[in-house]
Amino acid sequence: MKDRIYTDHAATTFLSPVALEAMMPYLTDKFGNPSSLHSFGEEASKAVYKARTEIADIFCCEPENIVFTSGGSEADNQAIKTIVSGRRSSVLLISAAEHHAVLNSANSITDSKIEIIPISPCKSGYIDPESVSIAIERTEKSVCGGSFMLANNETGAISDICKISEIIHEYGGIIHTDAVQAAGHILIDFKKLGVDLMSVSAHKFHGPKGIGALIHNGCSIPRSLIHGGSQERGLRAGTENVASIIGMAAALSESAKNMERDTAHIFHLKDMLISGLLPLGAIVNGGGLPGILSVRFPNGDGEALVRSLDLFGIAASAGAACNSKEVGTSHVLLSMGLTHDEAAATVRFSLDASNTDDEIRRIITVMSELV
Amino acid sequence: MKDRIYTDHAATTFLSPVALEAMMPYLTDKFGNPSSLHSFGEEASKAVYKARTEIADIFCCEPENIVFTSGGSEADNQAIKTIVSGRRSSVLLISAAEHHAVLNSANSITDSKIEIIPISPCKSGYIDPESVSIAIERTEKSVCGGSFMLANNETGAISDICKISEIIHEYGGIIHTDAVQAAGHILIDFKKLGVDLMSVSAHKFHGPKGIGALIHNGCSIPRSLIHGGSQERGLRAGTENVASIIGMAAALSESAKNMERDTAHIFHLKDMLISGLLPLGAIVNGGGLPGILSVRFPNGDGEALVRSLDLFGIAASAGAACNSKEVGTSHVLLSMGLTHDEAAATVRFSLDASNTDDEIRRIITVMSELV
Repeated sequence: MKDRIYTDHAATTFLSPVALEAMMPYLTDKFGNPSSLHSFGEEASKAVYKARTEIADIFCCEPENIVFTSGGSEADNQAIKTIVSGRRSSVLLISAAEHHAVLNSANSITDSKIEIIPISPCKSGYIDPESVSIAIERTEKSVCGGSFMLANNETGAISDICKISEIIHEYGGIIHTDAVQAAGHILIDFKKLGVDLMSVSAHKFHGPKGIGALIHNGCSIPRSLIHGGSQERGLRAGTENVASIIGMAAALSESAKNMERDTAHIFHLKDMLISGLLPLGAIVNGGGLPGILSVRFPNGDGEALVRSLDLFGIAASAGAACNSKEVGTSHVLLSMGLTHDEAAATVRFSLDASNTDDEIRRIITVMSELV
Repeated sequence: MKDRIYTDHAATTFLSPVALEAMMPYLTDKFGNPSSLHSFGEEASKAVYKARTEIADIFCCEPENIVFTSGGSEADNQAIKTIVSGRRSSVLLISAAEHHAVLNSANSITDSKIEIIPISPCKSGYIDPESVSIAIERTEKSVCGGSFMLANNETGAISDICKISEIIHEYGGIIHTDAVQAAGHILIDFKKLGVDLMSVSAHKFHGPKGIGALIHNGCSIPRSLIHGGSQERGLRAGTENVASIIGMAAALSESAKNMERDTAHIFHLKDMLISGLLPLGAIVNGGGLPGILSVRFPNGDGEALVRSLDLFGIAASAGAACNSKEVGTSHVLLSMGLTHDEAAATVRFSLDASNTDDEIRRIITVMSELV
C-alpha cells in the first residue's frame, strides 16, 4: 500500500507514465515551434497534427474542428462567448449546477440584453430535458443557446445532452456541453451528442495540466478569446503547447483503450466504499460517473472530515477543488435541493483505476473512526 | 557539431535541462491541484508560491502581482482588455510594430468609441517617445492607455519604455509592455520600467511552452479574460499549470544567473555573423537585443533563403514564427519604413548561448553559396 491514499481524482489526477513518455521528446530535442518553416517546426507541426487526429478519432469529431486551449476553463469561456456573440435580446439557458467556468463566464456578459436563465437539476443531480423545454416556453425572447454539462464534477450526475441539444436546436440556439469531467471516463461520441461545442481538459484523464480543447461541429465556429497569431486556424492565438498536446492525446488514447476494464474495477471499488459508508449513516448525493461518489453524513461537517482524512493520509474533497479554499457551500448540491447543512455535510471521493481494495478498506476504517 | 544548427531561438527555444529537472516531480508524484485542501494540494500550492517569489525577485515585482497565464498571447490580450475596460471616447496608443497578440487584440475591440492610434517606430525599429507625445497632443480625446513592446521580436529593437510610461501616465492612461522577447535576455526591473502591466512568456527563455504571466503594479488590476474558479486571486481561472510554472521559474533563474556570461558570448557570435554577412551585401535592420539579427539582402527572397538554409540543416526565420506560414510581408519591417521588397528580402537569425563559433562559420559558408 502507498503511504498516502489519493481519492480526489476529479480535482486532478496524476500524469500517466505513458503520456509523459510520449511528451519527453517534445520537452527535449523536438522543441520546434509548429509555425516555423524549417525542419524543427515541421516535426512539431506533424506531431500536433497526429495528436489532433488521435483525439478526433476518440471523440468522433473532425480533427480540424479541435481548438486546443489552455484547459477546460478557457474552453468554457470561449464557448460562452461564441454563443452570445452578435446575439441581442435573447436568453442563454444554463444548468444551475454548471462549473464556475461556465457560470462566471456567463455572469460576466456585460450585454444586458442577454438574459441568463438557470435551470435547476433534479434531486439526483441531472438536468431533466423537460425543464429546459418549459423554461424556453415561458420566455418570450429568442434563444441564443444553452450550456449544460455532460457529467457533473461534484456528483458525477450525467444529463441527457442529446435530448437537450435537440431542444436548444429546435429553438435556433447554439448548445455547448462542458465534458471536462466526463471525457476519458465514459464514451463520448461528439456527433451523436449533437452539440455545437464541447469542452474537455486533459488533466482530468491523466494528461498534463494546462491543456484542453474546445471542439466544434464546423457550423458554430468558435469566436476567438485570445487574438494574435493564426494558430488553430485563427481561432486561438499563441504558440502551441506541443508537448502537452502530445501528452493529452496519449493519455486519452490510453483511457479509451482501458476504459472497459478500468470502469469495471472502479465500479467495484465504489460499491465497496458505498457498502462500507452506508452503515455509518451516509446518504449518496446523486451519481452517474463511475469514479465519483458524493456522500453526506447527517450532522457531519464535510470540510472537517476532509481535513481529518488528510491527517490519516487520505485525500478527498468537500466540493470542487477550484473553490475548496473559498468559504461557502457547494452551489451544485444546493441547486439539487439539498439544504445548507446537508451540502456542508458532504464529502466527495473520486476514484480511479489505480486505487485498490486495500485502500478502500482503509478509508472505511478511518471513516468509521471519524464519523 | 550537432547535425542541425538552430538559430531561430526567438521563435521558440529548447527547454532548459535544469528547468525540466525542476518540473519532473510535478509531472510525476507531486501531481496535486493547488486548490485542494489535502497534502497533495498543499505541496503543489507551496511549489507554485515558491516559483512565484523567484520570478518576482528577478523582475523586481510583488509575487502577488504575478498572474500566470497560458503564455504571452493570453497575457497581451488580458492587458489590452484591462486598458480599455470601462473606458469610453478615448484613444489607445499602440506601436505599429507590436506583436499580433497586441495588434489583433486591439483590433478586436468592438467599442467604436475607443480609437486606436498606431505609432510608427523609427528606421532603427524602436519607438521614439517624442512620437507618442506628438500623437497624444494631436488628439482631442482622453488617453485610456498604450501598449509598447520592450524589445521587438523581429529586429530586437529596444524602446525606452520608462520614458513612454511617463508620457502615458502624464495623460492618465494605463501602460502595458509586451516583454515577451526581452525577458530572460536583458535585465528587467518592473518597478523602474514604470509600466502598469507587463507580459512575459517562458518558452522564449528556455522555459516550457504554454506558460507565461501578466505582471501588474497593484494599481491597474487585470480584468479577467478567463472567468471561473478563484485561482490567481480571481484574476485568471483554471487549474494552475503547476509543472510549467515551476519550469518557468527555474528557466528564468538560470537565465538571470548566466545572463552576463551568455550575453557576452551571444554578442561575440552576432559580431562574427555580421562580419561574415556584410561582404555578401547584407544590410542590418535595426537591432538591440543580443541574440536577434535581422538582415536583408538586396534583391533577395527571405522565405526562399530560409527554405534553402533548412536544406543545409540550418533553422532561421523570415519573420515572426507565429505568422511564418501566412502569406504577407512583415508588418514590423514595413512600419520601420522598409519597402515591400526590402522586407521580403529579410532573414532573421536569432542566436543563443548554446550556439558555437563553428556553427556561425557554417552559416556564413552556406549563406555565401545561397546569396
